[in-house]
Amino acid sequence: MEKTTLQVAGMTCGHCEKAVKGALTPIDGVKEVTVSLQDGTVDVEFESSKASLVQLKEAVEDQGYDVK
Amino acid sequence: MEKTTLQVAGMTCGHCEKAVKGALTPIDGVKEVTVSLQDGTVDVEFESSKASLVQLKEAVEDQGYDVK
Repeated sequence: MEKTTLQVAGMTCGHCEKAVKGALTPIDGVKEVTVSLQDGTVDVEFESSKASLVQLKEAVEDQGYDVK
Repeated sequence: MEKTTLQVAGMTCGHCEKAVKGALTPIDGVKEVTVSLQDGTVDVEFESSKASLVQLKEAVEDQGYDVK
């Protein structure tokens, strides 16, 4: 199991949090997603054998946010 | 047909816009809803014989926003 923190720009409200969580959680291998609107961060716990960091970033970007 | 401008606090992103629009548009008598995130305003065109201002305000408040 791996943990990463994505820096996500533009998450402003509860809807944003929901959109990001909803995009990451269904990905095979993702175990836990924690969003901090205040910090602009998304902590993701995932199995790197199943999901890749690139895949996680793309899922968030597809919701319209910039991932640094 | 009547027009009103609601001052709505806390709308920050496209999801907020969608939530507010989605709450107002299905109300019987509501003809057009225009959200400005920048101004924090929602313009509503509605038939006052069918929908009331109180009803419009409540629909927005039910989505978690303050209407002034």
